[in-house]
Amino acid sequence: MSLSSIPASLRMTQNDYQAFDALFAQSCDIGATPAGGLHRLTASAEDGAMRDAFCHWLRQQGFSVHVDEIGNVFGLLTLCPGAPWLLCGSHLDSQPAGGRFDGAYGVTAGATALSSLARQLKERDEDARLNLAVVSWTNEEGARFQPSLIGSAVFTGATTLEKALACKDAEGITLGEALEMIGYRGEPLPPMTLAAYVEIHIEQGPHLEQQQKQVGVVSETWAALKWQVAFRGEQNHTGPSLMASRRDALLAAAKTIVAVREEADRHGLALHTSVGRLETSPNSPNVVTSEATLYIEFRSADEALLRATGELFSHKLQTIAQETATDVSLISSLFRQRQQLDARLAQRAQKLAHELGLSSLKMQTVAGHDAVSLSASCPSCLLFVPSRDGLSHNEREFTAQEELHRGLDLLLALLADICLFPDVEETA
Amino acid sequence: MSLSSIPASLRMTQNDYQAFDALFAQSCDIGATPAGGLHRLTASAEDGAMRDAFCHWLRQQGFSVHVDEIGNVFGLLTLCPGAPWLLCGSHLDSQPAGGRFDGAYGVTAGATALSSLARQLKERDEDARLNLAVVSWTNEEGARFQPSLIGSAVFTGATTLEKALACKDAEGITLGEALEMIGYRGEPLPPMTLAAYVEIHIEQGPHLEQQQKQVGVVSETWAALKWQVAFRGEQNHTGPSLMASRRDALLAAAKTIVAVREEADRHGLALHTSVGRLETSPNSPNVVTSEATLYIEFRSADEALLRATGELFSHKLQTIAQETATDVSLISSLFRQRQQLDARLAQRAQKLAHELGLSSLKMQTVAGHDAVSLSASCPSCLLFVPSRDGLSHNEREFTAQEELHRGLDLLLALLADICLFPDVEETA
Repeated sequence: MSLSSIPASLRMTQNDYQAFDALFAQSCDIGATPAGGLHRLTASAEDGAMRDAFCHWLRQQGFSVHVDEIGNVFGLLTLCPGAPWLLCGSHLDSQPAGGRFDGAYGVTAGATALSSLARQLKERDEDARLNLAVVSWTNEEGARFQPSLIGSAVFTGATTLEKALACKDAEGITLGEALEMIGYRGEPLPPMTLAAYVEIHIEQGPHLEQQQKQVGVVSETWAALKWQVAFRGEQNHTGPSLMASRRDALLAAAKTIVAVREEADRHGLALHTSVGRLETSPNSPNVVTSEATLYIEFRSADEALLRATGELFSHKLQTIAQETATDVSLISSLFRQRQQLDARLAQRAQKLAHELGLSSLKMQTVAGHDAVSLSASCPSCLLFVPSRDGLSHNEREFTAQEELHRGLDLLLALLADICLFPDVEETA
Repeated sequence: MSLSSIPASLRMTQNDYQAFDALFAQSCDIGATPAGGLHRLTASAEDGAMRDAFCHWLRQQGFSVHVDEIGNVFGLLTLCPGAPWLLCGSHLDSQPAGGRFDGAYGVTAGATALSSLARQLKERDEDARLNLAVVSWTNEEGARFQPSLIGSAVFTGATTLEKALACKDAEGITLGEALEMIGYRGEPLPPMTLAAYVEIHIEQGPHLEQQQKQVGVVSETWAALKWQVAFRGEQNHTGPSLMASRRDALLAAAKTIVAVREEADRHGLALHTSVGRLETSPNSPNVVTSEATLYIEFRSADEALLRATGELFSHKLQTIAQETATDVSLISSLFRQRQQLDARLAQRAQKLAHELGLSSLKMQTVAGHDAVSLSASCPSCLLFVPSRDGLSHNEREFTAQEELHRGLDLLLALLADICLFPDVEETA
């Protein structure tokens, strides 16, 4: 079965673009920051308001809505009872003072594209061979609750519901409690066989812009090593206590942050490293810090390099602890392997991009995405649109409307192709 | 007039020690932490409860109570209407998870000693030549609200009431609002001429213990340079954003913390340095930090060294900002000069210690104390008792009961001496 058999006229209409623009604008408003960004942390009041608006929109468009036990919101269109599902989505939560596009674009684009697809199939009297569903995953960002990608990890069974609900924010509120507070701790989803998962997202890096490509098709992910490390020193007065007697956990943390950056610098472009979060106690100007917890990330396409870096830092942390008379412990360690996304779906996406006249780039993703989680459960495809200056997790994150619309064009084409010809996977 | 003219029998009685033990035990209970420390931040509920208990105790002992506009609590004993006042005190606020002795010892000892003194003068029908007052200063610690020493600074006019009330905690609550919440935003104190100020405190350093001395008499303070420094970078995704494009304010802060410590190491015992507090934003694991604010302290007995260090670090911060592509600004800078406490009061205190059979050490204080603020207004004297292992701002802060009682012995003797012979200052 050839891909060119998709009716050329099955395209986003002007009405569809407008529907997307309106839904996306609504998302930009709920949790908007004065500087043009978005502050919509998982299970916050803003997240609750956005979920309400999204569910309302879904019902208006004829989706039936299901909220599962970890708060993932599904919009379901049963076109072909008993058939597998084609799932499309992303996330509606943001980073603190984050951008308007990260996640929200994928959910609003997915919902609009599926709604358009269902309508056009009906108008044409075409037989869908799959059911359609859009999803907004809970806590993709890992900002208020760690780790990231919690909703999709529960869905695929990579983590347990119990563990996920027990994650605590900085105030000690669990994700379960927070979801209850906004009314989004739902019921188990009836069993659902997935044919494929498709996600569209902003790139959050500079490559599409630098190479002047309109869409990206992700073939694989970088591996990541994420550590939570705690140093324990001793409170003391910052004045009279002798320097030699101090056991300063903040000094140990600072030495670690500098070393983590130096490690990236030693490896050029092959290794990205960061410490984004640091918690200290008692954090008082006149008190030597007794506890410091760091969230360290090492990312690379080279798993062997990451493992070697982990080995090196195990020793490095011990050295720093000795130098500062502190104790160090590894609170948690998460190794995300390098993963391939579905090669045939990626090929279909690139072919469709070509048919649509869009320039495309086969690329890697350094950031984690729900599509990567889902690839353990079903063939998954991740599409990118450009990010201006590669900037993300920032209020100035930006992608132009025409770029968003081009992404929608490709997304609809791919969803239609999969929905009409789901067996290409098996028969190609 | 010779100091030996103090009646030898004017001493703390067993009942006085018991009264002190009971009041001090009450202070240890209010805001107690499970690990045996004290968490009683300025104008918190615990601070309110302690103030209530202290005011109740004062009234029971015949003091009249006055709370001034910045919440300083005075217990007044008018023995000689129209005469100047002999003031004695310290502070009841603590650091987060701090110790039971820091500040609370001086207030409870001062109150007990003055109460005993007034009673014994009355019993002997001696003519007091001064009025007596105990004080608990607001926000000595500078933990919840910066800067430290706010209550005594308003009292001496070193800062304005307006500025002090406007200080904000991390949640944006002003000191004025917090004092109102606990009912301790009072009325202006009627004009009060001070004859002298006496404060007793734990040393918070190792010298008395190391030199096996029972009491310390402070002759002078170290100078201090306190900076609040902010780095401004740019939020970005910690994954895909290129290392070379990052503007990481936490990395800049870490380099500064390391450099601040290295500066102390370069100068041996002559310079104490610290960064005790660090605020970062957005403090999310997957986001490059855009803002980091550090509270830096440099302390030395050598003012020239401190000024040179300040000069050096102005350049150092610029270099770090360049290296990290961040912007740096000095939010506030406070230079506390080296100060002499009253030499003649110190001499009287050492002579009295000798008469009481207490071994004493003439010493410097590295930490700031309200007595240092007060020395701008009247002759001031600061007495120390030992701190085990020199440990302070720590739940394990400890001074044995007999050491506390020895301090009380000296405190009462000095207060009695000043009260009966206030002119020694002028005539010596």
